[in-house]
Amino acid sequence: MSLPVDVVVMAAGKGTRMKGQRPKVLHRLGGRALAQHVIDCAAGLKARSVVVITGHGAEQVEAGLHAPEATALAFVRQSPQLGTGHAVQQAVPALADDGLTLVLSGDVPLTEPATLQALIDLSEGRHLALLTLDLPDPTGYGRVVRDEHGSVRAIVEHKDASEAQRAITEIYSGIMAVPTRLLRGWLARLDNRNAQGEYYLTDVVKFAVADGETVKAHRIADAVQVAGVNSPQQLAELERAYQLRLAQRFMADGVRLADPARFDVRGHLVCGQDVEIDVNCVFEGRVELGDGVRIGANCVVANARIEAGAVIHPFTHIEGEAAGVRVGPGALIGPFARLRPGADLGAEVHIGNFVEVKNSTLAAGAKANHLAYLGDASVGERVNYGAGSITANYDGANKHRTVIEADVHVGSNCVLVAPITIGAGGTVGAGSTITKSTEPGALAVARGRQASIPGWQRPQKQKKAS
Amino acid sequence: MSLPVDVVVMAAGKGTRMKGQRPKVLHRLGGRALAQHVIDCAAGLKARSVVVITGHGAEQVEAGLHAPEATALAFVRQSPQLGTGHAVQQAVPALADDGLTLVLSGDVPLTEPATLQALIDLSEGRHLALLTLDLPDPTGYGRVVRDEHGSVRAIVEHKDASEAQRAITEIYSGIMAVPTRLLRGWLARLDNRNAQGEYYLTDVVKFAVADGETVKAHRIADAVQVAGVNSPQQLAELERAYQLRLAQRFMADGVRLADPARFDVRGHLVCGQDVEIDVNCVFEGRVELGDGVRIGANCVVANARIEAGAVIHPFTHIEGEAAGVRVGPGALIGPFARLRPGADLGAEVHIGNFVEVKNSTLAAGAKANHLAYLGDASVGERVNYGAGSITANYDGANKHRTVIEADVHVGSNCVLVAPITIGAGGTVGAGSTITKSTEPGALAVARGRQASIPGWQRPQKQKKAS
Amino acid sequence: MSLPVDVVVMAAGKGTRMKGQRPKVLHRLGGRALAQHVIDCAAGLKARSVVVITGHGAEQVEAGLHAPEATALAFVRQSPQLGTGHAVQQAVPALADDGLTLVLSGDVPLTEPATLQALIDLSEGRHLALLTLDLPDPTGYGRVVRDEHGSVRAIVEHKDASEAQRAITEIYSGIMAVPTRLLRGWLARLDNRNAQGEYYLTDVVKFAVADGETVKAHRIADAVQVAGVNSPQQLAELERAYQLRLAQRFMADGVRLADPARFDVRGHLVCGQDVEIDVNCVFEGRVELGDGVRIGANCVVANARIEAGAVIHPFTHIEGEAAGVRVGPGALIGPFARLRPGADLGAEVHIGNFVEVKNSTLAAGAKANHLAYLGDASVGERVNYGAGSITANYDGANKHRTVIEADVHVGSNCVLVAPITIGAGGTVGAGSTITKSTEPGALAVARGRQASIPGWQRPQKQKKAS
Repeated sequence: MSLPVDVVVMAAGKGTRMKGQRPKVLHRLGGRALAQHVIDCAAGLKARSVVVITGHGAEQVEAGLHAPEATALAFVRQSPQLGTGHAVQQAVPALADDGLTLVLSGDVPLTEPATLQALIDLSEGRHLALLTLDLPDPTGYGRVVRDEHGSVRAIVEHKDASEAQRAITEIYSGIMAVPTRLLRGWLARLDNRNAQGEYYLTDVVKFAVADGETVKAHRIADAVQVAGVNSPQQLAELERAYQLRLAQRFMADGVRLADPARFDVRGHLVCGQDVEIDVNCVFEGRVELGDGVRIGANCVVANARIEAGAVIHPFTHIEGEAAGVRVGPGALIGPFARLRPGADLGAEVHIGNFVEVKNSTLAAGAKANHLAYLGDASVGERVNYGAGSITANYDGANKHRTVIEADVHVGSNCVLVAPITIGAGGTVGAGSTITKSTEPGALAVARGRQASIPGWQRPQKQKKAS
Repeated sequence: MSLPVDVVVMAAGKGTRMKGQRPKVLHRLGGRALAQHVIDCAAGLKARSVVVITGHGAEQVEAGLHAPEATALAFVRQSPQLGTGHAVQQAVPALADDGLTLVLSGDVPLTEPATLQALIDLSEGRHLALLTLDLPDPTGYGRVVRDEHGSVRAIVEHKDASEAQRAITEIYSGIMAVPTRLLRGWLARLDNRNAQGEYYLTDVVKFAVADGETVKAHRIADAVQVAGVNSPQQLAELERAYQLRLAQRFMADGVRLADPARFDVRGHLVCGQDVEIDVNCVFEGRVELGDGVRIGANCVVANARIEAGAVIHPFTHIEGEAAGVRVGPGALIGPFARLRPGADLGAEVHIGNFVEVKNSTLAAGAKANHLAYLGDASVGERVNYGAGSITANYDGANKHRTVIEADVHVGSNCVLVAPITIGAGGTVGAGSTITKSTEPGALAVARGRQASIPGWQRPQKQKKAS
Repeated sequence: MSLPVDVVVMAAGKGTRMKGQRPKVLHRLGGRALAQHVIDCAAGLKARSVVVITGHGAEQVEAGLHAPEATALAFVRQSPQLGTGHAVQQAVPALADDGLTLVLSGDVPLTEPATLQALIDLSEGRHLALLTLDLPDPTGYGRVVRDEHGSVRAIVEHKDASEAQRAITEIYSGIMAVPTRLLRGWLARLDNRNAQGEYYLTDVVKFAVADGETVKAHRIADAVQVAGVNSPQQLAELERAYQLRLAQRFMADGVRLADPARFDVRGHLVCGQDVEIDVNCVFEGRVELGDGVRIGANCVVANARIEAGAVIHPFTHIEGEAAGVRVGPGALIGPFARLRPGADLGAEVHIGNFVEVKNSTLAAGAKANHLAYLGDASVGERVNYGAGSITANYDGANKHRTVIEADVHVGSNCVLVAPITIGAGGTVGAGSTITKSTEPGALAVARGRQASIPGWQRPQKQKKAS
């Protein structure tokens, strides 16, 4: 029997060992907040609702998380924080009795949806089901004691465990699935008569057994899936585990990675066939790489679509932000190129070293190969934009547009003072500062006449004042 | 007895798990096609000939591989592909009976020549000799069964193996050396009466034993040497193994690597004494580093000779292609410099940040330290080439040469419009666009007169149209 | 009882396997000479004096090491080199009898001060105390044989060890603490009647036992602390161990590292709260990062103070050298920016791509966002310094200063020829080369008049001479 799933995400903890201002569950892994991973995972399970229990930094946490499509997201605050059981008690009023509650931790980001689905399936809509981990060295952890049928009888703390129980290598992960109507009843029976004076969620196991309910456990061996983040070290470890997992998946899809250990994806990367990515690249936001795209060493690419056959040379920085960047098919970019939001490059465009392009359209075959700036420009087909040339798009107060029509040749070290149009097929002489639009086919020049002073004596090295 | 060695390279497979258009054996490891590694290894053994058996993508494969010096390279096509034995059957007509055939796989790139030489030696020109691997967990692999004298009696598939045989940790690598006259006879006896309906090369072991021939085995423990590439993951693993092997060798020769795990050589790197290479550098093609050369972090260097004592600062991109790049002794390059084909820099030359040099000669002591472009230029000794200055070497149709004679001082943001010569000891005033050659010792200036408009009101921020 | 500690550092070895000109103990780990690590560690123990025994490359070694504050540093030369005992014999004349001698190796850089303090404490000012290592596989090493009370009875070479002794996993590290008065006597009894004809320091153990002195041993399990550097491979291994140790410490303090395996500190890094450091960054010299500072991927930062909230984008190169670099609070730097010595940037300053700043002060809110050079300049508040603009600070012989007063707007591709002052609130028109100072509020322009040649025919592609 399949019940609707409601997910409770524990996100009230402070994360003292993280040592910063940011609430723990907002620390980022793969570019997303830890708790967002958990919420997104819940959405992947088609959960009916997600209730996030906040506490420390509640406002920040609530502002820092968002609902995935088609999943309701609610927040409840736990204050004061009196333990895990108390936390879930805050959430149950928001949960309907016809559902299954899946309790997740906002600081456990890498659980696979398939694992949780297996846990849900195991509960059969009527049992308490625990996610457990087989750990080679379980010293210090509470052990999961099962009966001869495999049902869970108890979770026994390490210090209370018998010799035989200490030999058990199965430990509880903190994740459970439980029919909400049962959970509600058990939570009502929690007490805080223990050393810490806290209400423990794990006590529901005791109640379930006492009530004669079957307690199941889904045991996994992949510790990463249930690993929590309590310190920057653990965050870094999980970041690497996550990135390596992504790397393996991309490679399985045919992407050629020069070094899976030097590959970072923080967002959503989509790759076509025969994509090659060299060492030490970082991808952020939404990035699409078309068939045959090659990304050179040490590139940073964010929010961009790189179309088929384009080659991104090393040390290229692409940063589309909201406006996005498009690199057309067969384009050659870099090395040392920077493409900024709104750079829209057509087929076979070349952008070379020390060139910046922002909010500009370059039509097919246009080239800006050396030390140049193109901002707020519309560049026609086959334009050659000279080394050192600049669109002066900013008059100190407003941005204006530069239009360079097809087949124009702009010489070196020119300035095109916007608003301006350089007519099709025209030429701008090297070193010219152009302030008035030009006719198609015209040569525009604006520079001083060359003069010569023979036998000129250059300044001599001055002695330092002593 | 030493027979001439003929090498057969199996290279007909498709490599479905590689998931791309490229035939598997053309995927690159350390910058070279997998099968090229195998061919080059054969050349290192002074093989008489190399016969590559192609199939999937045969034309691409044949075009993508080349014969090393002093080794004959031939291709035979296998079509259809009916198994490993069938593959070798296609090759034997090309092999002379007086030789020893060494069967290698085009997707097993990292076998050491010394290992194969040991295998060849073991065959003594008359025995079938197998290369075998000792594998801690051989589950799933065919086991090598030996008699009490160490001779091989059979290769037994895992599923057919007895308990005792399964305890064997020696497995067959797919590599063998066999006198060609024996191989020819055994291949003629192959059949395809098996589940897959294929002709298996390993059946020759059975025939050899049946014929009373001794079958020897050279056992190694280094799995990397016989590891094949069937997926991008395996390719990445071997790439790392290869790079680490190279790193160890360079370090053993005295090269100081800041991080052997962040060091990539794709081609041929030659290092002098006291060379230091910082993290995350990539070397491609043929690169020579002279004594005392230091390469900063994050450099990409291809096809270049960096002479003694030169320092390459971080983020430098050197890309010599066919023309090559030379950096003279004691030169200082970067950070953020780009040297392109034909950059030939003399002693103590300085090339600084955001400077591009292409097809240009700079004599000793010349400097271009900031944001500049030198293309198709001949630059004399001690020239100081100003920030932002550009050689306008391209008139939109043709490339022309710029000559800057010794001791010239070119000011900032100049354009030198080629063809042009700046006479020795001359000066070019800042901001000048120079179109006519200048006399030695002259000051050349070409710029507008400075005018001033007092109390000038800059544009105001416009309101957006509502 | 606590004796004054005098440290003897063995630094006479050649380091043949390092294969270069540099004496072994001067090779750098984390940016410091190996022996300097040892000396600095001694200073951390508040040692009274440090005596370094030099030999091979003695002059270089003596020049390459420096005394930490409050610790006397002396050098004695060992020539010829007749063994470890002989080495220490050269040092004892320099040691006072009232002290404890701590013998360290100049090529063992990563011993923790706490470990040595424990060793010192163990000696109680009267015993010989050895630092020993528990090694899972001690094959080949001399074993530490203890009696039933835990006192050391002997160090037995592997080849001389009985079966029972070979089962011992405790080996001697080469590091000892010994009351100087005892050491002096034992050294006098050393002889070189052994296969190598050398005087061995370890023989003092034998004398101590013979004299009825108690020999103690402080056993550790962390092999890195006593690992020596004999080859570039070992140096690279310890470099990585050191960097990982630093990374762990920074993370424990709350610094967020995207990848601890791609993080290099060569000098002294100080981090505030909520600092984030992306992959593949290198820090050199003294670097301070204020609260909330973010360092993007692939940055190299040396001798700089980055104040609170500043963001350093990827591919930024900061290199303060002696003059230092300061980046003010909330500043945005990069990508592809280079800050050189004496760059002093105020609050909210923006330095963008392909911009170089050297020996210049930028007041709050000043911006130089694109392809520009600022050298020897004083830039006022809110100045906007245009793309491609250059301060021509060098007349070929002398450096001059450029002053740009507050609220100036410098257009694109300008040259400001120093010495010069651009008056407050003024504007420099794009493409101008300005040689004379300007009045506040003025518009200064210096460029040629724009001319047009209609229907201009660009050069045609020439045929190559045949």
